[in-house]
Amino acid sequence: MTTIISREIQLASRPNGLPTAANFSLVQHQLAPLPEGQVLVRNLYLSVDPYMRGRMNDTKSYVPPFELGKTLEGAAVGEIVESRAEAFKPGDVVTSNCGWREYFIAAPQQLHPVSREIQPLSVYLGALGATGLTAWAGLNLVDVNDDVIFISGAAGAVGSVAGQLAKLRGCQVIGSAGSPEKIQFLQECGFDRVFNYKTASVLEQLNQAAPDGIDVYFDNVGGETLAAALSALRIHGRIIACGGISGYNDEQPQPGPANLFNMVIKRLTMKGLIVIDSLPLLGEFEREVGGYFRAGKLINKETVVVGIDRAVEAFLGLFEGKNIGKMVVKLD
Amino acid sequence: MTTIISREIQLASRPNGLPTAANFSLVQHQLAPLPEGQVLVRNLYLSVDPYMRGRMNDTKSYVPPFELGKTLEGAAVGEIVESRAEAFKPGDVVTSNCGWREYFIAAPQQLHPVSREIQPLSVYLGALGATGLTAWAGLNLVDVNDDVIFISGAAGAVGSVAGQLAKLRGCQVIGSAGSPEKIQFLQECGFDRVFNYKTASVLEQLNQAAPDGIDVYFDNVGGETLAAALSALRIHGRIIACGGISGYNDEQPQPGPANLFNMVIKRLTMKGLIVIDSLPLLGEFEREVGGYFRAGKLINKETVVVGIDRAVEAFLGLFEGKNIGKMVVKLD
Repeated sequence: MTTIISREIQLASRPNGLPTAANFSLVQHQLAPLPEGQVLVRNLYLSVDPYMRGRMNDTKSYVPPFELGKTLEGAAVGEIVESRAEAFKPGDVVTSNCGWREYFIAAPQQLHPVSREIQPLSVYLGALGATGLTAWAGLNLVDVNDDVIFISGAAGAVGSVAGQLAKLRGCQVIGSAGSPEKIQFLQECGFDRVFNYKTASVLEQLNQAAPDGIDVYFDNVGGETLAAALSALRIHGRIIACGGISGYNDEQPQPGPANLFNMVIKRLTMKGLIVIDSLPLLGEFEREVGGYFRAGKLINKETVVVGIDRAVEAFLGLFEGKNIGKMVVKLD
Repeated sequence: MTTIISREIQLASRPNGLPTAANFSLVQHQLAPLPEGQVLVRNLYLSVDPYMRGRMNDTKSYVPPFELGKTLEGAAVGEIVESRAEAFKPGDVVTSNCGWREYFIAAPQQLHPVSREIQPLSVYLGALGATGLTAWAGLNLVDVNDDVIFISGAAGAVGSVAGQLAKLRGCQVIGSAGSPEKIQFLQECGFDRVFNYKTASVLEQLNQAAPDGIDVYFDNVGGETLAAALSALRIHGRIIACGGISGYNDEQPQPGPANLFNMVIKRLTMKGLIVIDSLPLLGEFEREVGGYFRAGKLINKETVVVGIDRAVEAFLGLFEGKNIGKMVVKLD
C-alpha cells in the first residue's frame, strides 16, 4: 500500500471566551499500515457544531473534554478506501465520529453504513445526521403535534429541520434568526411567522407573532430569547431545552432568566435534550425523516466551506451566525 | 335569628416588597339574614400561605389578584351553625375558600364536607388540605419512587409532608431548613439527612448530604438553593418547581440561576406545579394520605396562632420562617 498522510486539526490550547484560530493547529499524521479486520476511511465531509465549544473547556460534562494536542473528534461522512474487514468494501459510505481529519483507520463497529443513493452525502451530517436527529428527538420529547411552536436559532441546522418537521405535524411555526437571508430561508422552509431578533426586542416581536401565546418553545439560544418565551408560553406549555449558543463563549456564565418563576405560575414543563440519548432510535428516525427527504418534503440547507485548512474558520463562523442551515466542511 | 357580626381581614393597600401590618385592616361585617338554600358557617381555623403574597400584587397570574377593600380569600375549616339547605345540618364540618373571616353565608356547592373524626380539624388545612395535596401531587408529577430526593423549605407545610410521603415511597430524603428546631423536626419526620441552609453554603452542605448526587429536587424556595440543586442533580434528574419563597417579596425579580444550562447538559426535566390542577384528584388523595394519617404514619405539624386579630401576624411570620409545619390561625 502507499503511504497515507492525513491532515488533521488539533486543539492547541483551551479558549477563554470566543475561540480564535490560535487555539487550533493543523498537523500531518502518517497512518500505519492497515491491520487485519480494519478499514481505511477517507473523509468527504466534516461536521462543525456549536456543542463542540463546550468540549474545548476542561470541565466535566456529558462527554469528556477534548484533549490538548489530540485530533478533534466530531461527526464526518467518508468512504472506504481499503478494507481488511468483511463488513465493508471500497466505495462504501460511512458516518463516524472520528473527527477533523482526512483519513483514518477504524474497526467496523466504529462506523455506521449509509446509502450513497442520497446526495449530497453531507445530508448525513445535517437533516439525516445528528442535527436532524436532535430536531426530531426534541419534538418527540414533549410530544409536539398541532401546537403553536416557537423555534429560536431557527435557520440553524437543528432549528430549520425542527421547524419543517413541526409543520409536517400540523403546527403553527414561528422562527427567529439573525439576518434577512436567514429570514428568507425560513420562509422557504414554510415557517408561518418569522422575525429577525437583531432588529427589535425579541419579546415584542414574539408577542406580535403569537398574540395568543405559544404552546411549545424549542430553545437553541438561551439568554433573552428564553426569557421572552417564558413570558409568551401558555399555561401547561413545554420547553425543549436543546441549546444555548448565546452563552457558549461566556467566560463567566450569565444569570438565568429573571422570570423563571413562570415555570410554576404557568405549570410549564422544561426538558433538556442531548442527542446521544436518542441514538438507539436512529433506525426509526432514518425511516421517518429519510422518507420525508426522499419525498422532497424536507429542505437540507447547507453552508459549505471547502478544505480541511478552513475547518477552523467554519467552526468559528458558527458563533458569528455565518451558517444558514448546517455548516459542513467539504474535503477536497 | 340573632344578628351575626363577623370580624374580617381586608387588603387595605398593596405591599411593595415585604408586607407590613399597615397593608391590612380588621373590619366588622354584619351578616344578612340566612337565605333559603344556604348555610351559615363559623370558621374554626384559617389558613395563611406563602402563595397569598403573589395575589396581593396587581398582576395577572393563575388566580386574580386580591381586591383592595375586600375580605381576603383563602382556605378555612369551619362548622355549620345554621342550615337552610338539605345538604348540611348544624355541626357539620366543612372546608371552604372564603377566607379570612369569622362567619360567612355560603351555598352548599362552595363547601367541601369533611369528617369530624379526624382531629384536630386544622389538619384539613395542612396534611389533608391544600398543602398536603400539593406535596402529594408534586411527587406524582415526576413519578417519585425509590429516588434520592432533596426538599427545600422542608420544615414547611408542603415540604414536611412531601418528605414523609417520599419516605413511604422508598426514597432517601434530604431536607434543608432554617433553624435548629426545624432541623430537629425533620429528623422526627424521618428525613435521612438534613442541614440548616443559614449556617453554611447550600451547595457544600448538599454535596456533603448527597455525595453521589440527587435524582429529584422538590423546590419550595428558588434562589441559591435551586442553583445548588441544578449542580447536584444527576443525569436525567427531575425538578418539581413548586415554590420560590426566597423571591416572593422582591420588588424586582432576581435573575435566575447562572447554571440553568444544566437542564440541557444533564437532560433534566423541570415541571411546574400549582395545586388547583390537582383538585380533581382530591378523593384519591384523601383516601391515600388520609389513610397514612389515621394509621399514624404521617405527622401533621402545626404552628398555631390564636385569634383573627393575629391572622396578619401569622401571615407575615411565614416570610420570617416562624412556622414549623403548617401555619394556621385558630379562631377563638
